[in-house]
Amino acid sequence: MTHQALSLGIDIGGTNTAFGIVSPEGKILIQGKIPTKGYSDIHAYISALHNACLDICSDKLDQIERIGVGAPNGNYYSGNIEFAPNLEWEGIVPLANLLETAFRKPVKISNDANAAAMGEMMFGAAKGMKDFIMLTLGTGVGSGFVANGQLIYGHDGFAGELGHVISVRNGRDCGCGRKGCLETYTSATGIVRTAEIFLIEKKIDSILRNQSEITSKSIFDAAMQGDELALEIFKYTGTILGQTLADAVAITSPEAIILFGGLAQAGDLIMKPTQLSMEENLLRIYKGKIKLIPSALHESDVAILGAAAIL
Amino acid sequence: MTHQALSLGIDIGGTNTAFGIVSPEGKILIQGKIPTKGYSDIHAYISALHNACLDICSDKLDQIERIGVGAPNGNYYSGNIEFAPNLEWEGIVPLANLLETAFRKPVKISNDANAAAMGEMMFGAAKGMKDFIMLTLGTGVGSGFVANGQLIYGHDGFAGELGHVISVRNGRDCGCGRKGCLETYTSATGIVRTAEIFLIEKKIDSILRNQSEITSKSIFDAAMQGDELALEIFKYTGTILGQTLADAVAITSPEAIILFGGLAQAGDLIMKPTQLSMEENLLRIYKGKIKLIPSALHESDVAILGAAAIL
Repeated sequence: MTHQALSLGIDIGGTNTAFGIVSPEGKILIQGKIPTKGYSDIHAYISALHNACLDICSDKLDQIERIGVGAPNGNYYSGNIEFAPNLEWEGIVPLANLLETAFRKPVKISNDANAAAMGEMMFGAAKGMKDFIMLTLGTGVGSGFVANGQLIYGHDGFAGELGHVISVRNGRDCGCGRKGCLETYTSATGIVRTAEIFLIEKKIDSILRNQSEITSKSIFDAAMQGDELALEIFKYTGTILGQTLADAVAITSPEAIILFGGLAQAGDLIMKPTQLSMEENLLRIYKGKIKLIPSALHESDVAILGAAAIL
Repeated sequence: MTHQALSLGIDIGGTNTAFGIVSPEGKILIQGKIPTKGYSDIHAYISALHNACLDICSDKLDQIERIGVGAPNGNYYSGNIEFAPNLEWEGIVPLANLLETAFRKPVKISNDANAAAMGEMMFGAAKGMKDFIMLTLGTGVGSGFVANGQLIYGHDGFAGELGHVISVRNGRDCGCGRKGCLETYTSATGIVRTAEIFLIEKKIDSILRNQSEITSKSIFDAAMQGDELALEIFKYTGTILGQTLADAVAITSPEAIILFGGLAQAGDLIMKPTQLSMEENLLRIYKGKIKLIPSALHESDVAILGAAAIL
């Protein structure tokens, strides 16, 4: 058995923490999981995480050269988790320091979308690219911008919040306290809001009218059955996404935009209207040059691979 | 006299080409000028430029280590001027190659706004900064984005077109063929358009009503005299600029935004409403953190210093 330089990728979610040993080729060799919840003391959590990692990989510990962590509000520069609303630890948590002490390996942390961007660049759809935008369309909308082969962290480590660019001036109320953020239209919750509005505004018959609870999944299912209203919902969502992407392109001129997350799995239903709207709204010098592509990584692997790829 | 590593900065404008020898501290030691117009043959132009440079600096030629050129549509990657609408040479001009052959020195080229950004970073208001946005508010609106201490050129060399981000959806017609670009509101020509519209829409008395031709300068003069309408024009311009800057901040999270050009010289008239609007529109994590500052370089020096700073 040859000695490979391995990475440990740790993905801290609100509910669970997943971790895995990743090969240089982007294969998860072995993985494990502990709950994130239930450790009000961060030291108890670090200790549990350390033990769980040792349990599955004590034989590979020597080969692990570095540890990457994807965490909500994870700040690359400080190594801290800063005021994460969905974690039990309040304020500023010096996570990288704590993990370095426990594991005695170098630790880098970042947020989920940035980690996903690094994962795509090292192992996925952005392999070999130096300029691209990673967009995660989940419950919220996250993004990671890569330019000159490096993630743009910005002055304070908080760059890449495309989900909170104002897509519609004075538009929908956003959880951030402002109005019209991209996230309020193109996240899983955003598309449900669009459905609720369209059901009132548009006098079109729809399968969705019979549903007690509309979800992004039920809108997708309806659209796949050719439901006219559901198709219009996707068209509207893609139109707004394309408009906002066209503006983002004018800033970083990427080779590609990679879509990931629940909504991206709707395939052509979201890709086609987004591409159409983006092309319509692009400045001429960018037209026809920007690839819009789905993530090339398995949904279940992205978080760990991305974390392991943070350099 | 010690042997210093000097740079030659060349600024190619539609009418004239200015050039100067720049010291490592950002001092223009000597400078000259030739017309850009009148050389339908690019080789004749290169030869004239080379001779003019030799005339002023033949004694320093050995000390010049590199040449930087700011040119309309100058592409950093290819070294070409590509389809510049305001130059006599059509199509693609391999400018860097031609200059390297003539001068036998390494040559880098870029566009004016990117050059200005490099100039500010090496010699001006962005000294020591690694993440900032340079905005040039002239006849048009140009921009250069710096992240991780490097200019963002993008995949094709055409990144940084903040002037063509859509600030107002379905807004004013832009020369680029689209509607609502930032440039149509916050350039020297944009502010004149605002004045023309406000003179019709608003029933406020104004000095501007007596003018046969309104210019950005006459709007500035009126505002300095306390003219209510002129002040509203600046407020409106700053409001739109601040909104668009707030969105740009969410992408690159800069330490500062540096304003340069005619409109930036209006000082507080433009800075105050821009700052106010930007702060109002920023996502909470960025509030109170982004410096909005005027260029620290002399208007007449920026082009040459910027060109000389292209690395």
